[in-house]
Order: sequence, then structure tokens, then C-alpha cells
Amino acid sequence: MSTDRSPLALPFPALPAIAGVTPHVARAHYKSWDRCDLTFITLDPGTAVAGVLTQSKCPSPEVEWCRKALVLGQARALVVNAGNSNAFTGNRGRAAVEAIAARIAGRIGCSPSDVFVASTGVIGVPLPIDKAEAGLDAAFAAAPCRWEDAAATIMTTDTFAKGATTQAVVGGRTVNLVGIIKGSGMIAPDMATMLGFIFTDAAVDSAFLQSALAHANNRSFSCITVDGDTSTSDTVLAFATGAAGNAPIVSAEDDGADAFFAALADLCRQLALLVVRDGEGAQKLIEITVEGATSDRSAHRIAMSIANSPLVKTAIAGEDANWGRVVMAVGKAGEPAERDQLAIRFGTTQVARDGLAVEGYDEAPVAAHLKGHEIEIGVELGLGEGRATVWTCDLTHGYISINADYRS
Amino acid sequence: MSTDRSPLALPFPALPAIAGVTPHVARAHYKSWDRCDLTFITLDPGTAVAGVLTQSKCPSPEVEWCRKALVLGQARALVVNAGNSNAFTGNRGRAAVEAIAARIAGRIGCSPSDVFVASTGVIGVPLPIDKAEAGLDAAFAAAPCRWEDAAATIMTTDTFAKGATTQAVVGGRTVNLVGIIKGSGMIAPDMATMLGFIFTDAAVDSAFLQSALAHANNRSFSCITVDGDTSTSDTVLAFATGAAGNAPIVSAEDDGADAFFAALADLCRQLALLVVRDGEGAQKLIEITVEGATSDRSAHRIAMSIANSPLVKTAIAGEDANWGRVVMAVGKAGEPAERDQLAIRFGTTQVARDGLAVEGYDEAPVAAHLKGHEIEIGVELGLGEGRATVWTCDLTHGYISINADYRS
Repeated sequence: MSTDRSPLALPFPALPAIAGVTPHVARAHYKSWDRCDLTFITLDPGTAVAGVLTQSKCPSPEVEWCRKALVLGQARALVVNAGNSNAFTGNRGRAAVEAIAARIAGRIGCSPSDVFVASTGVIGVPLPIDKAEAGLDAAFAAAPCRWEDAAATIMTTDTFAKGATTQAVVGGRTVNLVGIIKGSGMIAPDMATMLGFIFTDAAVDSAFLQSALAHANNRSFSCITVDGDTSTSDTVLAFATGAAGNAPIVSAEDDGADAFFAALADLCRQLALLVVRDGEGAQKLIEITVEGATSDRSAHRIAMSIANSPLVKTAIAGEDANWGRVVMAVGKAGEPAERDQLAIRFGTTQVARDGLAVEGYDEAPVAAHLKGHEIEIGVELGLGEGRATVWTCDLTHGYISINADYRS
Repeated sequence: MSTDRSPLALPFPALPAIAGVTPHVARAHYKSWDRCDLTFITLDPGTAVAGVLTQSKCPSPEVEWCRKALVLGQARALVVNAGNSNAFTGNRGRAAVEAIAARIAGRIGCSPSDVFVASTGVIGVPLPIDKAEAGLDAAFAAAPCRWEDAAATIMTTDTFAKGATTQAVVGGRTVNLVGIIKGSGMIAPDMATMLGFIFTDAAVDSAFLQSALAHANNRSFSCITVDGDTSTSDTVLAFATGAAGNAPIVSAEDDGADAFFAALADLCRQLALLVVRDGEGAQKLIEITVEGATSDRSAHRIAMSIANSPLVKTAIAGEDANWGRVVMAVGKAGEPAERDQLAIRFGTTQVARDGLAVEGYDEAPVAAHLKGHEIEIGVELGLGEGRATVWTCDLTHGYISINADYRS
């Protein structure tokens, strides 16, 4: 099926090459489509790796493979298959991952555990090993590609290719960070998956990289939702080649650690927002900020309750300043909240305060704000210092069309 | 707005009168509509009451009022307002509830705390006391009405009136139970609310009634979901007049306690299913049974994760046997699950077993089952003895139209 480009899409940015990272793409023909669907990225020796993986209790074999390989903290290659997620495929699925890792290990001379694999697409169908191997052979033979080609090749039902970049100064040297990501919620006939890959030339110890990625994840990928459903294959991996030549960052006290962490967090946030911008059927990007909660964690839960509420999401789709639905979502979160201290704003306009509608508030700026593509909802609980910001999109007929009108 | 009658609607059943219970309806004109919107039910002296109320942290003043009055365990009257939920209205909302209770208490000679009040409709607008009082005066003057009239009068955006009945033999006497209920998920421009009211002529101590209702609730109202959103006003009250003359049931060991409990549980289940049948935009009633979990509680959480998954609900709307989405929802529930032991059926056909698609399963009976109005999904986890059944409806364009295309 073809889907129109999201009205929230952003143009693909200019991304710098990352020394030590070489992307390639090829056709594995995982589906009957005429596009590249296998991405193969080689990483120079010495590359550190960190990752965050789905918390699903039914993960794909790729996720299990990566979880195990991450313990060693080093990487030489990444393979991403699009069109087949290989999830829920038993031993045959595991065998496909092992075959891919073995073939690459033999070719470039590394351990299979240095090869990271991610797949996205139809579930319940074992990844065909012959197609994967033929695709890899084509990728070995191919010239290096642009980041944009890699970003497009990992897409399934995404409507635009997604990438971002940032820099940091570490020990007097400028390091580059580049990320590509795919995901748009879920897509008929299969669940879609968020796969994100970050590459930097900074020298970073893998344990520190893991800690930094986990923290950045808490403020980015863990703060977005399209429909509240979690894929069996969600994967974010970060690779650091060290080619920039800075003194390796080993701990948070090291020179440049703060700058690197801030850059990584910024990149993750950019990438996460791109996924929401491609949310299935999305017409509006919604930023929800909850303040005054009893803790940051409580604020996050309340914000996610609002972000996952079909009632709130359809109200925004209808450009309706229905703050009553926000109250409902605050109330159902199960977190401390005092109805009579609650204040709610749309954009910069307070519409409710002290548990009551603000009498005679000016509806014009609210209506104008809701007609835009980027919507802000603010909730002040008045209880403490806890705060969180999360992002979602509206729930529209487009979502239903994508997920219900198509048959597998 | 007018909505077509749900394709899952059932005709209103013949309900017996309950001795000691006298329903009336009247026009309070809470909205600019030409229909009765105030229900007033008198209860003979000696009536016991029990209730389960929304767990929202931002409840309506009616919910707070009922929570307090339930402590005393006795009731003389019930008032239900439709068209205005009185939620999020501060002191003025509380004053409206107090005024209603005081007026009835003065008129029938009881304590205000014997008067139970529930309201459903627009939120953020204080219930107009003058309209409530004029409506009550009209209700006092009105002749008693049929159960169907009361069931229709408590409706907001429901598409059909909902009632059920059952009987039990307690201490050699047949006792009657009748229930009416309203709710259909959420409705533009406001959240809808589930309000259920149960009446019996059995003599039951209020503490036992509370315990029985709480248990029945766990297997009925707590096992349904239309969209996962929880109203600020959800209320189920059970009233027992004692007019049947049985020896009062005080504890679970008393004669007839089991029969009464079973009847109450049956009635609650009937009523709960009627709400799902009127789920906004619903075309299909979905029953989800999870077995083999590590506990009943774990089974319930997994079943609700499936029932609340937009991905599963849109697949059923699309008549698509997409078991991968069921796997996803099992995995995200956060409860113990072993991917490679998972079995899934649609109707009576196993489609996945041992973590794999059942090769060559017969798709014809699955397709036929999915074309029907009543869909069964079965999940076997293979871990223990825990089981749960929950009910939901599909997620359709109708839901989006009701909740997004209309403005408040």
C-alpha cells in the first residue's frame, strides 16, 4: 500500500560522514517490492556499542541476539532487514540471525557477536536465509551509500526518511553524532517497529555509552507514543568508533562527558520526534508537559496517560479544546492529583485553573493554536516539583484506515 | 447528534417490578432537548445500599457524595441527571448535589445521606440547581414509570436502553434482581460515563451487599473496556429493599448467600456486556480469554492489554486474523509470558502454537468467525492456572467520527 507523506514530515537533513562507519544498501527482496531492503553498515575495529531494547516479554530473536551481544560492548557491523521482522518464528528465526552474523563474521574477520542485527516487517514468517545471504553478498559488492539511502532502506511504512545530527566538543575535539530511525506506530498488516541507529566518531567507553544512552532514552524514546502499543522488535543502538581521537570518555567526570551526553540526548530527542511526526494518520504533533507532580516519574505517568488517551487524541484531531478529557486522563493515571488544584493550558492560554474552567477565557488564541500542526498541552498539578514532557500525535480516520481497512 | 442504533443492540427485556422501588422520570431540561433527563427512584425504608465508584483521582462531586453516604449503608432515594456530569465544577458542583439531597430529604422525610445522586453529561459546567429542583418537583408529581423509561432517561449518547434481570432462591423465597445501565465509552463533546443501578427485593445486609457487589464487579464491570479511558463519574449502586421477606443475608455462610451472589454476578455480567455492545462505533463484540497465566490477576492484565490495544481492535474491525498483534499485546503487558509456549485461537481455530504459526491451519472457519458480530480470541500461556475473560469492541471509523468530527 502507498501512503501519502505525513503533513508533519521534515526534509532529510545534511548529515556528515562519521569516520569509521561505512553504510551500504542492497536488495534482499524480502517482499515483492523494487527497493533496497537490506542495510549493511561496517564499523572500524575498536567501535564501542550500547543499546536499549524493547521491554516486550515476546521479543524477536534479533532483540535477544542484540541483548546478548551488547554485554561485550564492541561492534564491527550492523545489518537491518526491512519487510520481515522475523518475530515469533521459533528456532528458524534464531537460525536466520545466526546465519547472518556468521556470514559477516567470516567475511570481515570478526566474532559473530560483533555483528548486530535488527529486522522489521511482517511477523510470524521466518526470515528467509537464502534471501538474506544473497542480499548481504550484494551489499558487500555495493559502493558505500549516503545516510539518506540507509535511512530510506530501513523504512517499512514510514512516509519519509528520518535522520538527525549534532556535535559536541570533547577534550578540545569536535565530535559528530548522526542518527537514523524508522517507525510510525503500527502498520497493516503488521506491527511496525521503531529501529534507531546512532553513530559517532567520539571515543567513548561502552559502559559509559550504555549509561548515557539509557538516560537519553528516558527523555526521548520513552517519552513518545503513537498508539500505546509496543513492538516486539524495538531497538536503538549507538556506535562510537573513536576516530575523532579524543581521550576516551569513561566516566561522567571525564572531560567532555557532559557535552557528549547533552549532544546524545539532543540527538535522541530529535530522532524520537521524527517518529511521532510520522505517526500513522497523524495530522498534529502534540507536546504534553506535566508540572507540579509529586515526582518526575509521577509526572511522566500522568503525561503518558494523557498522550495515550483516545479521547484526548481524537479531541485534538477535531481541533477541540476539550480540557475535560485532559482531566479524565489525569484522573485515570492513578498518580497523586488534586482536582481542585489542577490547571490546564492549550498553547499559552489557561483554560482551567483551581479545578474550574477559567471563566471567559479568550477562545480565539486557543482555536488558532489548535488549527496548527504543533499543539501544546500544559498541565500544572500544584503538588510538587515533578515534571515531564512527552510527545504524541492525534488519532484520526487515517489511523483506522491504515490499520483496519487493510487485510493481512 | 444522533447516532444509529448499535448493530450489537439487544431489545429491552421484560423486567419485573421490585417491591419497595418506585421509579419516576421527568424533564429537567439540562440540555436543549425534548426528552426526560432526570430519573428519581424512591426506596422504601430499610433499603440497604452498596456501591463501586470510579477510581479516578479527579472524581465528580456526586462520586464523592456517594462514597461518603455508602458508609452508612442505607438508602431512600436515587436521582440520576443526564446531560450534565457536574464534574470539575468546584464548590458550585458540590452545592448542587447537596441541594438535590436536601430537597428530597425534606420531601420524603429522610436524612440527606439517604439520597444517592449520579450525573452524566457535559463536564465543567455546574449542574444548574434551579433546573434540578424544577425537575425534581416534576418527578414528585409524575406517576411511576416503567423500567424501560428509567433506562432511557439515564442515557446520554447510548444508542439503546439497557436493562437486565435475574432471580435467586434465598431461604425458600424467590428474590428478583433488576438492573439498568448506561454507557458507551466516550462521546463528543464529553466523556461518557458508566452508571449502573441494581435493585432487588431481597433482604441483604449492606456489608454483605457491598462485598458481593465488589466481587461481582471484579468479574464484570472491571472486565470491560471500550477505549481504556476512565470517567470521573463511573458509578454502580445496588439497592436491596428486603420486601421479599427472606431472612436477611448477613454473611457468606447464610442460607441463600451463594445463590444471591451468583445471581448478582450474573446480572452484573449481563449489564457490563450491554455497555460493550453500545461501545462507540462498535461493530463487533470481542471476548478475550487468557488461560495458563501465573495468576488470575496476571491473566486479567494480559487480557486487558489485548482488549485495549488499538492494533488488535482495528484488526478485528478489519476482520483480519492478525495474531501477531495479539502476540505484541501479550508481550507489552509486562506480565510473565514465554513466547515459545504461546498458543492463540480465533473462535475455535488454533492459529498459533508453541510460539509459531500453526502451519496450514484452515483459514475458512477463521474468516467466517471474524465476519460475525461476536468474536472470540483465546490465548493459552502454558505457565500456570491463572485465567480471565474480558470484553471489548472493535475500533472503527465510527469511533473517530463520534469523538473527533464533532466539536464542543
